[in-house]
Amino acid sequence: MTNFADRLVSAIRRCKTPTLVGIDPRLNSLPHCLQPDSNNPSPEEVASAYLTFGKGIIDVVASLVPAVKPQAAFFEQLGPCGMQALGEITQYARTQGLLVIMDGKRNDIGSTATAYAHGFLGPDGSTQFTSDCLTVSPYLGEDSLEPFVDVAHANGNGLFVLVKTSNPGGGRFQDLIADGLPVYRHVAALVNDLASKTRGSEHHPYGSVGAVVGATYPEQLEELRAAMPNTLFLVPGFGAQGGGASDVAGGFDESGLGAIINSSRGIIFAHSREPYADKFGDARWQDAVDSATRDMIAALATDTPAGNL
Amino acid sequence: MTNFADRLVSAIRRCKTPTLVGIDPRLNSLPHCLQPDSNNPSPEEVASAYLTFGKGIIDVVASLVPAVKPQAAFFEQLGPCGMQALGEITQYARTQGLLVIMDGKRNDIGSTATAYAHGFLGPDGSTQFTSDCLTVSPYLGEDSLEPFVDVAHANGNGLFVLVKTSNPGGGRFQDLIADGLPVYRHVAALVNDLASKTRGSEHHPYGSVGAVVGATYPEQLEELRAAMPNTLFLVPGFGAQGGGASDVAGGFDESGLGAIINSSRGIIFAHSREPYADKFGDARWQDAVDSATRDMIAALATDTPAGNL
Repeated sequence: MTNFADRLVSAIRRCKTPTLVGIDPRLNSLPHCLQPDSNNPSPEEVASAYLTFGKGIIDVVASLVPAVKPQAAFFEQLGPCGMQALGEITQYARTQGLLVIMDGKRNDIGSTATAYAHGFLGPDGSTQFTSDCLTVSPYLGEDSLEPFVDVAHANGNGLFVLVKTSNPGGGRFQDLIADGLPVYRHVAALVNDLASKTRGSEHHPYGSVGAVVGATYPEQLEELRAAMPNTLFLVPGFGAQGGGASDVAGGFDESGLGAIINSSRGIIFAHSREPYADKFGDARWQDAVDSATRDMIAALATDTPAGNL
Repeated sequence: MTNFADRLVSAIRRCKTPTLVGIDPRLNSLPHCLQPDSNNPSPEEVASAYLTFGKGIIDVVASLVPAVKPQAAFFEQLGPCGMQALGEITQYARTQGLLVIMDGKRNDIGSTATAYAHGFLGPDGSTQFTSDCLTVSPYLGEDSLEPFVDVAHANGNGLFVLVKTSNPGGGRFQDLIADGLPVYRHVAALVNDLASKTRGSEHHPYGSVGAVVGATYPEQLEELRAAMPNTLFLVPGFGAQGGGASDVAGGFDESGLGAIINSSRGIIFAHSREPYADKFGDARWQDAVDSATRDMIAALATDTPAGNL
């Protein structure tokens, strides 16, 4: 069973980029050619459009990037038929050689946490939701994370734990100072401890438990990179959420490892954004996805240590 | 659109009990008569057994208690077919007159939080997951809760936000002291503010945003009852997790309102617990559920202010 961190590092090195493509379908943002015909589509019709869209993204990015990150919320919004589409997209991505980081932000305690872990992080093929990695929330403490770590690690899978988020209200609890450190640093210490216990090969310092770090200020990424030497970062917010390549540079180590950088809307809805909208338009939406992905890869290679990969 | 708090208070008064029955199916704990025939059942076979079991519980408790709480994890564990069963159980419970508090502990930010909210808290019939209330996690801050509050309140639905949990590691972050108060009290202050903004009628002080409070010590329930005068509590851990009726008394106000008390395993698997196992056994598992539910109702009426309902 190959360690998740090893698999991710290997895929990053093979693709020579830490670009992560978020699959966050929204009905009104889909290319017109994929919109359901009816004005008031059923959940089943929307789920079918999301499945086509998701597979179309995967077909474009599978040869370019190491991993995709489906956002469970946009599928769960549709009810069970949406979850069916999520499962099909997840398995399709894996058959195309992509790692799947399921963005579910799940959490619970004890045997309930174990149930979530079996749903998303069990052996290959155990459910349609089986992914390579899952995002989880830390509020319930270490015994809410350990069941996820146990199941993930036993099956060569991984986790990204929410540590520091960049939404305007993210500091409300994360930045409270306790014992001289903000709460997010207390979470960071636990996560790095779990990371150090799930290390893979000797060829890099990282473990299979990572951290979601959406730093509000670029310096916070540097601070956490130093404080969490064994922890891979999942950094959201590139592109549509306002961050550029230079803003995320602090998340990397000198070799260009240590972080994966997510873009969702900036890539998957490139057909409606300049310069891609003018060049490709709606009908060539997959060419827009291809072009936006290559531009992000180039920007990260130019403006961050990912250029050393 | 009737306010969720009003609907819950009305149901509690009608049933004269704040008993909440958790629907947490586990394959190995099901009555033998509901176990799938095969030794290595498929997810679809397990989901079918969970659906039969869940409906069977609902048939027993619909006339006794105000609400049920399906635990999403045990259904998501099975993949999409489990989520289909969860949706069917949710809608069946509502047709039988029960309020449904979906235990999903979901959370995210911005439009992603709104997507989850539309999945679980939209208008009646918008998805099979549509419930009366959803549990959510607070780590991402107020702008991760507000989208849930907006959608829930607009549709007469509610939330329970994790505030204080009783698992052994729950204090790791929740009990950190910042500005002279534990982190959970900072969360409690925000939740009570949201509760006061979602109040219903003048006949009780409670709003549609509640708190999950699994107090480690009975005094913590009293402390939070005093600190959160507008907040309904969802108190887990009765029965199988070790808490008795007197341990949860501090969660109530003098009139017997203010808290709903959950029991999952203690009720739904009563067929394998004494004194019910001996009296009813496996074949009469629904009689065991009925008896265990009535015993919990009686214990809460005797040992807590719920006797004043």
